[in-house]
Amino acid sequence: MDKDFGPREGEQTVDLPAQTDAGLYFIGRIHTPWKERKDCPKNARESEVVCTLAVDEKWAPGLKDLATCSHIIVLYWMDKSPRNLVLQVPRHYGEPRGTFALRSPARPNPIAISVVKLLKIDGSTLSVIGLDCLDGTPMLDIKPYFASVDSVPDAIVGWHKRNKS
Amino acid sequence: MDKDFGPREGEQTVDLPAQTDAGLYFIGRIHTPWKERKDCPKNARESEVVCTLAVDEKWAPGLKDLATCSHIIVLYWMDKSPRNLVLQVPRHYGEPRGTFALRSPARPNPIAISVVKLLKIDGSTLSVIGLDCLDGTPMLDIKPYFASVDSVPDAIVGWHKRNKS
Repeated sequence: MDKDFGPREGEQTVDLPAQTDAGLYFIGRIHTPWKERKDCPKNARESEVVCTLAVDEKWAPGLKDLATCSHIIVLYWMDKSPRNLVLQVPRHYGEPRGTFALRSPARPNPIAISVVKLLKIDGSTLSVIGLDCLDGTPMLDIKPYFASVDSVPDAIVGWHKRNKS
Repeated sequence: MDKDFGPREGEQTVDLPAQTDAGLYFIGRIHTPWKERKDCPKNARESEVVCTLAVDEKWAPGLKDLATCSHIIVLYWMDKSPRNLVLQVPRHYGEPRGTFALRSPARPNPIAISVVKLLKIDGSTLSVIGLDCLDGTPMLDIKPYFASVDSVPDAIVGWHKRNKS
């Protein structure tokens, strides 16, 4: 477990189940300039850095037609995160929040999702803008972003809004 | 494997890896009115049906603060889908598409994501609008939807746009 993630005051953990219920295949790796957690951008939208998604050859035929998408959803596995936190205290907020109300990588299933801008696809390598994860992060899935179902411009996260005001 | 999903002409499969790389915990179940695939709505946005997310008691403390969100992202596991298709022919399009250019449940890691409207939270049960999955589908994660990073109203899926015109 990453030492950056030890339980802090106000945090609550649970005992993890003895067994997992399903298994994942890593379909490739994400390459970014960030080698340590402290180097990662706070918010992916703050960064214009071009990152690359290296899809394993086995899965590369699945990329057909994807280049016609302006934006894609990337699912990846935050393999350095603890999975037993139900309440956690994000450093920049200072009070306990429920895990499911946060986008923290620490969660029962540390699957992160990012909406990124697709620049180009070269063989099995995609160039994208909008990631903030560590170099070498395992990739789980790539999906087309459909504004018709995925975009909700007026959505509100109440606790976050209050926190900022 | 669901009989609805057998490979069709033009589809391409790969040999799955011998082992999985990581494990998932099911954190609860999704309850919907749909018991068979043919009954599910074609598009979640077409349905105003209220569905429920039943989070296991173990994880319920993680729901703190979530009720302040107007919209949430639900990740769930399409456990009836084949995982070895790289090219597939969606019934309503009739030509082979790359798996990663589709939102089909058939993919190496059959994780579905849906953006849903959160109506209320009652203990560990959430009432939401915007799902189209089968009753009893295992749930993997719940995240707050942040318009600032998740909403891209002008995103385009080129192949889909051409297909409709």
